[in-house]
Amino acid sequence: GVLGSGDFARSLAVRLVCSGFKVVVGSRNPKRKASLFPAAAEVTFQAEAVKKADVIFVAIFREHYSTLCDLADVLAGKILVDVSNNTEINHHKESNAEYLASLFPACTVVKGFNVVSAWTLQSGARDGNKQVLICSNNQEAKRTIAEIAQVMGFTPVDMGCMSSACEIENIPLRLLPAWKIPIFLALGLFLCFFTYNLIRQVIHPYIREQKNKLYKIPIEVVNTTLPCVSYVMLSLVYLPGVLAACSQLYYGTKYRRFPDWLDQWLQHRKQIGLLSFFCAALHALYSLCLPMRRSHRYLLIETAVKQAVEKKMTIWVEEEVWRMEIYISVGIIALGLLSLLAITSLPSIANSLNWREFSFIQ
Amino acid sequence: GVLGSGDFARSLAVRLVCSGFKVVVGSRNPKRKASLFPAAAEVTFQAEAVKKADVIFVAIFREHYSTLCDLADVLAGKILVDVSNNTEINHHKESNAEYLASLFPACTVVKGFNVVSAWTLQSGARDGNKQVLICSNNQEAKRTIAEIAQVMGFTPVDMGCMSSACEIENIPLRLLPAWKIPIFLALGLFLCFFTYNLIRQVIHPYIREQKNKLYKIPIEVVNTTLPCVSYVMLSLVYLPGVLAACSQLYYGTKYRRFPDWLDQWLQHRKQIGLLSFFCAALHALYSLCLPMRRSHRYLLIETAVKQAVEKKMTIWVEEEVWRMEIYISVGIIALGLLSLLAITSLPSIANSLNWREFSFIQ
Amino acid sequence: GVLGSGDFARSLAVRLVCSGFKVVVGSRNPKRKASLFPAAAEVTFQAEAVKKADVIFVAIFREHYSTLCDLADVLAGKILVDVSNNTEINHHKESNAEYLASLFPACTVVKGFNVVSAWTLQSGARDGNKQVLICSNNQEAKRTIAEIAQVMGFTPVDMGCMSSACEIENIPLRLLPAWKIPIFLALGLFLCFFTYNLIRQVIHPYIREQKNKLYKIPIEVVNTTLPCVSYVMLSLVYLPGVLAACSQLYYGTKYRRFPDWLDQWLQHRKQIGLLSFFCAALHALYSLCLPMRRSHRYLLIETAVKQAVEKKMTIWVEEEVWRMEIYISVGIIALGLLSLLAITSLPSIANSLNWREFSFIQ
Repeated sequence: GVLGSGDFARSLAVRLVCSGFKVVVGSRNPKRKASLFPAAAEVTFQAEAVKKADVIFVAIFREHYSTLCDLADVLAGKILVDVSNNTEINHHKESNAEYLASLFPACTVVKGFNVVSAWTLQSGARDGNKQVLICSNNQEAKRTIAEIAQVMGFTPVDMGCMSSACEIENIPLRLLPAWKIPIFLALGLFLCFFTYNLIRQVIHPYIREQKNKLYKIPIEVVNTTLPCVSYVMLSLVYLPGVLAACSQLYYGTKYRRFPDWLDQWLQHRKQIGLLSFFCAALHALYSLCLPMRRSHRYLLIETAVKQAVEKKMTIWVEEEVWRMEIYISVGIIALGLLSLLAITSLPSIANSLNWREFSFIQ
Repeated sequence: GVLGSGDFARSLAVRLVCSGFKVVVGSRNPKRKASLFPAAAEVTFQAEAVKKADVIFVAIFREHYSTLCDLADVLAGKILVDVSNNTEINHHKESNAEYLASLFPACTVVKGFNVVSAWTLQSGARDGNKQVLICSNNQEAKRTIAEIAQVMGFTPVDMGCMSSACEIENIPLRLLPAWKIPIFLALGLFLCFFTYNLIRQVIHPYIREQKNKLYKIPIEVVNTTLPCVSYVMLSLVYLPGVLAACSQLYYGTKYRRFPDWLDQWLQHRKQIGLLSFFCAALHALYSLCLPMRRSHRYLLIETAVKQAVEKKMTIWVEEEVWRMEIYISVGIIALGLLSLLAITSLPSIANSLNWREFSFIQ
Repeated sequence: GVLGSGDFARSLAVRLVCSGFKVVVGSRNPKRKASLFPAAAEVTFQAEAVKKADVIFVAIFREHYSTLCDLADVLAGKILVDVSNNTEINHHKESNAEYLASLFPACTVVKGFNVVSAWTLQSGARDGNKQVLICSNNQEAKRTIAEIAQVMGFTPVDMGCMSSACEIENIPLRLLPAWKIPIFLALGLFLCFFTYNLIRQVIHPYIREQKNKLYKIPIEVVNTTLPCVSYVMLSLVYLPGVLAACSQLYYGTKYRRFPDWLDQWLQHRKQIGLLSFFCAALHALYSLCLPMRRSHRYLLIETAVKQAVEKKMTIWVEEEVWRMEIYISVGIIALGLLSLLAITSLPSIANSLNWREFSFIQ
């Protein structure tokens, strides 16, 4: 059974019919709405639909839950699936599912399917996430809904009892919350170092010696900026751990909560580290591209011609040769080690490591 | 209990014995077959074996299921595990497991272990996939088989009720079905662009100016071909979405099924995108290798010598310098962004993103 | 309920209180220990704590399990969660959880939470592994503990019945056991080939012709060593499969166990392959860096100057040009194919491949 005639209700009905279920739709105006639903779904009045179904998807807004109170008698003993979402994180005190459960104490309420979009329901689970998070205080009802989700082509994930409903309802609203601070941090650092390097490498030579080095902006200035950002970010990954240890030593206990800013910082370490790796990888790419540039070629030929005309045969500077060889090989080793760190942060790899192995690699 | 004496039955018996289970094998000719099974397994007549066991693995071909009908009485109430596979996808109307269940309505049938090869059973689950997909209409039986799978070193995956059996039976037969069309598409595009570039860069100069540029084939021609393939593939990822939107606008509804070709296309977007990324990454590698080539070195020295002999000191062309700097930096940024897309298509990362985040990154 | 007052017991109490559970702590000296626990947790004598709780976390050492025997009467019928770890792999004959179950046959024992560190409990599951492995012979008890783990922010993983307890207890002690042999193998091979290349490229020219080529050590010698290591490692991945096949042909049966050394070798193939890929990737990086070096630049200019002074205009050697072009393009293709192999060894990708697909890619 599906209650509601909105976009989600229709997509749900389409998908359920496609997956071989017998669907009955409850609407306050079945005649007008019938044409919106697939022909195989029976569209009727709400009370009648509820009578015919054992599992009822409540695809209406939280604000209208109370309109269902007239149906309380026929709903008693049925499984109600709350598929609703909020428009803001933690908008209401209690989750929609818990609110529904409090309105209909005689029903078994299951939270689920809210993380799925109407479009995904409509067209089948194709790309991206196929998981449907489910929670309920009733094991049997949860299992029934999980089996329905499976038949519909989704991967049900048991999220435990009803108290997880709030968390499940917040999931579709979040937009990479853990990445916001690290990304702005990286952008800020990039801007600072870029300005500094621009002044040093382009503006200063222009003012002092009237040399036009503007061509350096897209590659060389960016390439000297990236490793600075990467270094600072990497140090910001390991600094909060040290601060936390100091704070523990200072207060003489492990059981005191860290201040909020330190706590936040500790939680963002993984993202900061990955951005540091991203900058380091870009720096490697930029550096590798240096000999491909026209300017590199021209400077090389110019030097060669100058030497040839002046008949200077040797230009070998042992110190410069060594400096570059060591610089490059240390850079490669650093990138290789950072790659290992980045790979172990992939969820499927991290889940196969125990705590001791994770610390060892770190 | 194991019914059958084929390769799979023997491997199953070996593994079960190794995992500490008491195994009884039912064969129509126990004396002759006993030597094939491990000593710890008891080999006896089918009826006797069935009597002694609560869980019976039916390791015989679908064609011979009917020969078990004589045992229907002793089998009643037992758990039958259907481990059979077909030789073709959707070969029979109903799955083997459902056919077995229809023959023995008094038994509880569980589908499972068919995705595991005899070799994996024999040697223990080592590389690759350790998952054993299980489905049944009986929760309790499913759980029993899941625990057996766990003890044997596999990861049981609950696939819901019996209607999934058909899907589970098709799994071991499929060979990257989603990749076939995208790979042939990529190969076709590569061939077209390669021919065009070969004519343009090698054959044409040879005919017009008798210049031998054959050395360009392995790297330069391939390197100009790869980005073309990558671009076309990338546009093919986003084109079907636009077409789908147009079709929805044209028909004025979201609830009309797309034509089959568009549906197929929409389903292959992820694979096309990954191949596009693969071509782009290869293009980056090829480009980075350009300055390593002997031909590059020779051309550079030749130019330098020519300039030196003619005493021309400056060859700097501001426009060419800028063009190359911008070309390279845009290329690096494009590759960086494509990498992000590719990483979010890893299953373990995609599962941790909600729909809003996935669309945002796309 | 939590029995014990050590580090783990305290962290557990903190976390349970934070997750909204009502916690009672049982201690032999409640007055002295009360200050160590969060204010919301009730600290009392062991017998009293046990009476008040249905689920009891036994956070004491295996050696002291027997001290609980006095409480056997009040413990009867309760769920005991064994969170203990050992200090050595397979230290005792039977796992701690099985030992606890044998001491208290009237209780339901669940193994779990031992893979979580006190620090992770304390600060919430943030980085790395959030999985809590749980096993028990009682389904209902296992489910109760799984729900508690979920509310605490962990991902419960059902590991089946009590016989898995030993395996679960060994997990936190292991330190990349599968990687030890492959890593020492790679280091050994690297050392051998490095010495050979050092003698050949640096020491020999120095002794014979007094040429100082020491600058080649950090990059060129390493770069000729890495592909040798990579090749040998790659062949070591595919050799044991051939040996296994030969052994099967020789003995005329698939059902004979391989000798231990071959078995070990077969089990380490994946790790050896990944190290081979790592060496190949480093080799690619080193090679790409070659034209960035000062020495490369100096040698180029020197050659150009020499040619210009001698007025030799052509230095083009067709054979050398072709050799390098083919060498580079074959190298790129090999790296591309190795990358595919490496990507399919990611757990989340490997789990989505069936056996046939995995063999096809291999």
